[in-house]
This record gives sequence, C-alpha cells and structure tokens, in this order.
Amino acid sequence: MAGDTRERFLRTAAELFQKQGYHATGLNQVVAEGRAPKGSLYFHFPGGKVQLAAEAVTAGGAALAERMAVAVADADSAGAAVVALGELFAARLVQSDYTAGCPVATLALEASTSVDIRSACDHTYERWLDGLTGLLRRFGTPEPGANAQLVLSAIEGALLLARVRRDTAVVHEVTARLATVLEQG
Amino acid sequence: MAGDTRERFLRTAAELFQKQGYHATGLNQVVAEGRAPKGSLYFHFPGGKVQLAAEAVTAGGAALAERMAVAVADADSAGAAVVALGELFAARLVQSDYTAGCPVATLALEASTSVDIRSACDHTYERWLDGLTGLLRRFGTPEPGANAQLVLSAIEGALLLARVRRDTAVVHEVTARLATVLEQG
Repeated sequence: MAGDTRERFLRTAAELFQKQGYHATGLNQVVAEGRAPKGSLYFHFPGGKVQLAAEAVTAGGAALAERMAVAVADADSAGAAVVALGELFAARLVQSDYTAGCPVATLALEASTSVDIRSACDHTYERWLDGLTGLLRRFGTPEPGANAQLVLSAIEGALLLARVRRDTAVVHEVTARLATVLEQG
Repeated sequence: MAGDTRERFLRTAAELFQKQGYHATGLNQVVAEGRAPKGSLYFHFPGGKVQLAAEAVTAGGAALAERMAVAVADADSAGAAVVALGELFAARLVQSDYTAGCPVATLALEASTSVDIRSACDHTYERWLDGLTGLLRRFGTPEPGANAQLVLSAIEGALLLARVRRDTAVVHEVTARLATVLEQG
C-alpha cells in the first residue's frame, strides 16, 4: 500500500509539473489530487518538493522509455521507428489537451537551478539517447550517436512548437523529415 | 523617457522569465530589477503579468531575430548559416550561465494555458520559421519550409539538452549534423 501511495504521488506530481510547471504546483495540490494525507508525502519524500520533482522526472522518463520501446518494437527501419516515436509523443500531447509533451522539458527549463532536478533531467535524456543510439545502431544507421542526438533534439523542439500551436502536425512533419534523413544515411 | 522605462521592464521581465520561469517571477521583482516605480509598471502594462509576459516574448523574439539575421549575414551556404545560428544560441547560454537559451521556450511550456502568452510564443516561432525558410530558399535548399521546421525544432531541443548538461557541445553537434543534412539536399 505504501508503494501505491508513493507512486500515486509521483504520477500526480509528474502530471501537474508538466501541465502547469514546477513553481505553480504546490504540495497541497499534489496531496489533494494524490488522495493521501500530507504527512505521507513528507514520509515518502523527506526532501520535499525538490525530491518529488527529481523523482517524478526520473519515474516519468522511465515510464516513457518503456512506451518508446513498445512503439518502435515492430518498426522495420530507423525511419519507421522515428515516425512511430513522433506518433507516440503527438498522441500524448493530444490526449492531455496539449499539456503533456515531454515529462522532462518543463522542469529542465524552469527548475534547472536545482542541481538535483537538473541532474534527474540530464540522466533521463541520457537514458533516452542511449536507447535511441542502440535502436539506430540495430538498423545500421551511420553515426548512431550523432543521429540519436539530432532525433531527440528535433522531437523535443517539435513538441514545443506543437504545444504553442495546439496542433501536432509539426511533430509528424519533423519525424517524417528525420526518417528521410536517416534513410539517406 | 517613458519608452525607456517600458523597454527596461520588458528586458528585465524577459530575463527573469527565461532564468527562473513565469510563475517564480513576481511583479515586485520586475519592478525592483527594472528600477522603476510599481505604478509605472501597471501604467505600461495594464493587463499585468500576462501582458508583460506576452510582450516580453514578442520583444525578446524580435531582438533575437535581429541577432540571427546578423549571425547568418556572411554565411556562404545553408549549412554554414545553421552552424552560425547554433553558435549564437550557444553563446547566449554560456554568457547567461545556462539560464537564457530561448526567450520563448520556458513560457511556451509553463504558461501556455494563457491564450495571450501562447499566441505570442506561436507568433514568434512563426516569424523565426519564416526567416529560416527564406534563408534556406536563398541557398536553394530543397523543401525550405520542412527543413526550416527541422532546423528550428532541432536547435530548440538541443538547447534543452545543453541547459541540463551545462555544456553547449550538443548544440554544435546538432547544427553540424543539420549542416550535413542540408548540404546533401
């Protein structure tokens, strides 16, 4: 049960941080939406809001990595895999009414003055990059590391544009363009 | 003189929003760092913080567009122009001790529930995209619109990665990769 409460706090916090940002999210709101007593929040996260945010980034990043692995499982080329990743991220944006793009980006920009939060963001991006690099290597894409960085950067940036446009077309257009680039080698 | 105060407020607000985010920035801090009486803030920005943020995005975006135009003025190829843009953005990050990447991104993620702020972010990105598209067209790059979207997305995403790493190498690596892609057509 304790595990359930802890995870519910993390999920709730991750959602609120993505949607409205770190500073606009109070612990009282996390407690209320997490449906658990405030004391249990401090029991699970003695480091308070910073610890909650750092762990929410890590947990949200790991959960999304799982979904990315599923999304690319049936791809028969590097390009198809990148298009599938674009579809996954675009679907998240639409399902959340354009509030949930990347579980890392908002905290990366807004709370990177905290070493713990910045470090959690950094590690999450690195894990994703490792996964993407392995994926591209599997398909024989040249310079898999450099191309993985291009792919992750372009998807992250496209999510920003999609969010302010409230239209995911840019995500699909950018991943289609990346697919062409990767197929050309 | 009034014009000076107004612009000082905008510059100060743009800096604080980029550095610490929208919600963490109070109007009192803008007033204090802008060295002007609080009444004059409300005189210039009767719409309060939302108006200040929307105008700060627009003004910051326009100022950066000017700097982008200067940065690419001497480029002799689309690739060289994109590398020069990467250098401009990377230099901004380093000079600000990794607090100022893009004057739009933080507000785009954190305050996009405000229609006025979201719309200012959207318009700024569109203006940059128009400029980039024109630049690529000038160099005869095929599909200038789609490639401009890829370039802007990739630079925006690379700035996110650079900010959490506190290292701009990723910006230079991504723009170098983009340069190769653009030269291949």
